[in-house]
Amino acid sequence: MSAYKTLKEETYEANMRLPELGLVLFTFGNASAVDRNKGVFAIKPSGVPYADLKVEDIVICDFDANVVEGSMRPSSDTKTHAVLYKEWNEIGGVVHTHSTYATAWAQALKDIPIFGTTHADHLTSDIPCAPPMKDDYIQGDYEHMTGYQIIDCLKERGFDHNEVEMILVGNHAPFTWGKTAHKAVYNSAVCEEVAKMAHLTLQINPNAKQLKEALKKKHFERKHGGNSYYGQE
Amino acid sequence: MSAYKTLKEETYEANMRLPELGLVLFTFGNASAVDRNKGVFAIKPSGVPYADLKVEDIVICDFDANVVEGSMRPSSDTKTHAVLYKEWNEIGGVVHTHSTYATAWAQALKDIPIFGTTHADHLTSDIPCAPPMKDDYIQGDYEHMTGYQIIDCLKERGFDHNEVEMILVGNHAPFTWGKTAHKAVYNSAVCEEVAKMAHLTLQINPNAKQLKEALKKKHFERKHGGNSYYGQE
Amino acid sequence: MSAYKTLKEETYEANMRLPELGLVLFTFGNASAVDRNKGVFAIKPSGVPYADLKVEDIVICDFDANVVEGSMRPSSDTKTHAVLYKEWNEIGGVVHTHSTYATAWAQALKDIPIFGTTHADHLTSDIPCAPPMKDDYIQGDYEHMTGYQIIDCLKERGFDHNEVEMILVGNHAPFTWGKTAHKAVYNSAVCEEVAKMAHLTLQINPNAKQLKEALKKKHFERKHGGNSYYGQE
Amino acid sequence: MSAYKTLKEETYEANMRLPELGLVLFTFGNASAVDRNKGVFAIKPSGVPYADLKVEDIVICDFDANVVEGSMRPSSDTKTHAVLYKEWNEIGGVVHTHSTYATAWAQALKDIPIFGTTHADHLTSDIPCAPPMKDDYIQGDYEHMTGYQIIDCLKERGFDHNEVEMILVGNHAPFTWGKTAHKAVYNSAVCEEVAKMAHLTLQINPNAKQLKEALKKKHFERKHGGNSYYGQE
Repeated sequence: MSAYKTLKEETYEANMRLPELGLVLFTFGNASAVDRNKGVFAIKPSGVPYADLKVEDIVICDFDANVVEGSMRPSSDTKTHAVLYKEWNEIGGVVHTHSTYATAWAQALKDIPIFGTTHADHLTSDIPCAPPMKDDYIQGDYEHMTGYQIIDCLKERGFDHNEVEMILVGNHAPFTWGKTAHKAVYNSAVCEEVAKMAHLTLQINPNAKQLKEALKKKHFERKHGGNSYYGQE
Repeated sequence: MSAYKTLKEETYEANMRLPELGLVLFTFGNASAVDRNKGVFAIKPSGVPYADLKVEDIVICDFDANVVEGSMRPSSDTKTHAVLYKEWNEIGGVVHTHSTYATAWAQALKDIPIFGTTHADHLTSDIPCAPPMKDDYIQGDYEHMTGYQIIDCLKERGFDHNEVEMILVGNHAPFTWGKTAHKAVYNSAVCEEVAKMAHLTLQINPNAKQLKEALKKKHFERKHGGNSYYGQE
Repeated sequence: MSAYKTLKEETYEANMRLPELGLVLFTFGNASAVDRNKGVFAIKPSGVPYADLKVEDIVICDFDANVVEGSMRPSSDTKTHAVLYKEWNEIGGVVHTHSTYATAWAQALKDIPIFGTTHADHLTSDIPCAPPMKDDYIQGDYEHMTGYQIIDCLKERGFDHNEVEMILVGNHAPFTWGKTAHKAVYNSAVCEEVAKMAHLTLQINPNAKQLKEALKKKHFERKHGGNSYYGQE
Repeated sequence: MSAYKTLKEETYEANMRLPELGLVLFTFGNASAVDRNKGVFAIKPSGVPYADLKVEDIVICDFDANVVEGSMRPSSDTKTHAVLYKEWNEIGGVVHTHSTYATAWAQALKDIPIFGTTHADHLTSDIPCAPPMKDDYIQGDYEHMTGYQIIDCLKERGFDHNEVEMILVGNHAPFTWGKTAHKAVYNSAVCEEVAKMAHLTLQINPNAKQLKEALKKKHFERKHGGNSYYGQE
């Protein structure tokens, strides 16, 4: 029996949530989960429809994106996941989708402005849109560089990946992460909903203003940090 | 057996209707129901996914938001519900959601204009958007003050909470209420549908005008008051 | 056993199709079917949720909107249906909904322009929007006058109700009709889909032009008249 | 037993996928599959609701659109399918829908701009919109000429039908094709999703620019050609 059985199950379940939440069409998305002790992560195989996906199809890779276990080819985005796990020790899961509204913002090359508390419950800044990669990087090790495109964008903005758990890759689509694969999936759904609300907000009021600081802070602290009082813990 | 069994069941059912009606993502919403004789209301526990919610998880609180019965922490919005029950004797239920279109109007800081009879069947004015709270109130007892933000907005507009049973809290999201929790849930769905229709109306005709008085009056009176002739009672 | 059993069943099924097709929220809609030989039509009772509706709840009325059989109060729009059946001998069914996109066009007081063959497969003109009623008519026998509002609008435009089987009532919502209740339900879904497509067309191209005459004619004739070649008859 | 049993089953399944994917309302669409050895294709009968469709209803036609086997009348669009099969030897399936967003672009007479990698994963150019047909062609053999309208548009743009597998027919709706009927159905869903994303992209940023060449090339080559590395083959 595989030493990675539990990790594969967690990853399978995270992946299966994506079509349930309406975040992927066909195979346009993938979720992964990490096992820090074993130094590996588990990811969806490339191009397998969700309806056909089985736990045993999940592929195990190391943080240089080498396959450790599995008979199928891993997701074509595997190197991006690997870079994020390697650079960010605190994250436990990564998700990539082409969800409709978040992808539209990425195609528009626009950050998603923070207009309300739905957004502030999850992060206190706009959701950043990383500018498209330089041509020589695209022609090189593209998916590997996509990882650094994400990391560099957060650095340039001065954002902490433990507080900002979602990004738009310009002209491409969103990536999200979190303490667990489950949380990364949750963040993908939040990103899509916030993207839709922000679009509608600007349609209704093209001069809509960002949420004021006091509300950003209050709502984020309701859910995060030592004085949080949301949920049961 | 709990003395609040029926109240908990009513509250459980009202909460479960919210995801069924497409009004909440994850845990972004809560419904409560009151028992005026016992001086308590029942509300969803904080942060519990709807799929996991059970009748016995429902928390009983008094009108100062103290927990009277229940092992879980009540919704983080409990104080807002408490204020509304305390100030408005006639209401039997309160609902809060972050439904997509109503929240977009709240984020846009715009009242939802009354453009048609779907709206006028339920209220004869625009759906008001309460302006964001002052910073010192946000830093103080925020959820308690949200209750007064709602009450004050209605007062300033000269609206009766028995006739206007829904409001947008600016930069946040809608709150609705009604004679029962079931009616408050119904009003949340009406608010979302009317919000979507009003958005589309302005997209189609940016110069769209409010419904004329005679139609507002006629449609409201079809459903409300002594000469109503809608429904079976 | 009721002499109207078959008529009630037909009407029940037509009504139940409305929520299935996503055309009604709660009780915001009603379908009726006529029996010309008996001089009656059958219609949904007022305010009864679709989930609770039963065949035996369906109410039988004459063409002056008097109840002939049934223990429940008929739809509040019954007089509008009655007028249409009385004036237009060829129609067998009438449907009223507040479907989202068609209602938005009605609230915008705009005809739905004929932009493509999806529209032309069903009618060769814009879908007309009847202007709001005069105040004294609203204060009078409102639902009765709504019937004439529809009939008069078609007359003024020079439209034949056998060819144009759908209309928007300004600031209110769509009404449709057809040879059968089933066809009237079908027309309600077509009206909503065409309304959505026309809205999106103008969003994509604010200068979009109406379909040219040759295409209007060709597509309508594919489905209607002696030389039609669509379907199996 | 029919010599075309397998072909009919493939065609039936392709057709049934269309409502499942939300691409057709009522009977507004059709899928076909070819058997090159037998020189025939199988297509949906005209006007039959998907809920009633059976494998044995599927009609077999030759490449001049003559019925070879089947008791029902084939789709009114059969001649368009026939022309495409006759002219393009490599294709195995053709699909026509009136899916909402793609049809809106067709009604707007606009190509769908390539704004992101979701689009570039499938084709490296805008999705072309063929201009409406000349009036005398419409009055002539309309569906036959629709086939040439599609073929001519691709020729004028210098597009290869093996690389561009989808088109909008101006004022009408999309047609897609592919190596198999299954792939043609897949392309219809991709076309609709890309149409929706492009619409939203322009709503968010009216000055949105096309994807740059390096990204177009990279994403297309991930999925197509000798160096592709997407999927399991």
